Amino acid sequence: MMDGATQDASEVLAALRFSGDGLIPAVAQQHDSGEVLMLAWMNRDAVAETLRTGRICYWSRSRKQLWRKGESSGHVQRLIELRVDCDGDALLVLVDQSGVACHTGTRSCFFRAARGGKLSEIQKPSGAMAPGETR
Amino acid sequence: MMDGATQDASEVLAALRFSGDGLIPAVAQQHDSGEVLMLAWMNRDAVAETLRTGRICYWSRSRKQLWRKGESSGHVQRLIELRVDCDGDALLVLVDQSGVACHTGTRSCFFRAARGGKLSEIQKPSGAMAPGETR
Repeated sequence: MMDGATQDASEVLAALRFSGDGLIPAVAQQHDSGEVLMLAWMNRDAVAETLRTGRICYWSRSRKQLWRKGESSGHVQRLIELRVDCDGDALLVLVDQSGVACHTGTRSCFFRAARGGKLSEIQKPSGAMAPGETR
Repeated sequence: MMDGATQDASEVLAALRFSGDGLIPAVAQQHDSGEVLMLAWMNRDAVAETLRTGRICYWSRSRKQLWRKGESSGHVQRLIELRVDCDGDALLVLVDQSGVACHTGTRSCFFRAARGGKLSEIQKPSGAMAPGETR
């Protein structure tokens, strides 16, 4: 698997179909364990920055700005490989996640499972917070 | 890991935040290999049917109708477990995929990778089509 860092994005961007609001969903997967960590959104600038820098950059829909994952928490996602689906309207980013992906302190954002008609928490906060960081 | 089949959906649905168009993105992951197969969309009815029947049902945005995965191709996705993210606005469905997930004949829809600034096909059609099916 190649390292995804420092690539020009123009050819990749040309293959992408952004939605009406200029966004595309991006699934982050830990490259070695296969764990799906989170789903977030990118705009054109976020895709370009991710490929250029080798660090995952999303678009925050709530803050309406580029969201350099881990900028405040230290829980950065290093890009291993960016993949594009058949229709060009979804991304899969293989990453190396530092610490935890979820703002709740769990490794993955998908820590609740439907079991017996109820949602069960199947993963607890790991405590693997960045040094000096409070949860 | 529990089998996700035949669950009542009301409590799960109550935890979900559908977007303005009534949809939520769903990432399908092969439960044992960890391969991310596809990203598609569900509405409330699709989530409920998936939990009730144990077979993955999406919402087709192009056909504007429920899309029972594999209905025409035979490439059904059996639900192993449905997971919900921290914000309730994304789903991860662990599935057992029959045949291939992608309409192009590849196992995963994410068969293109950004390498050296270009998109490379990293997975070929597997030929594992359902009996009697033409690609």
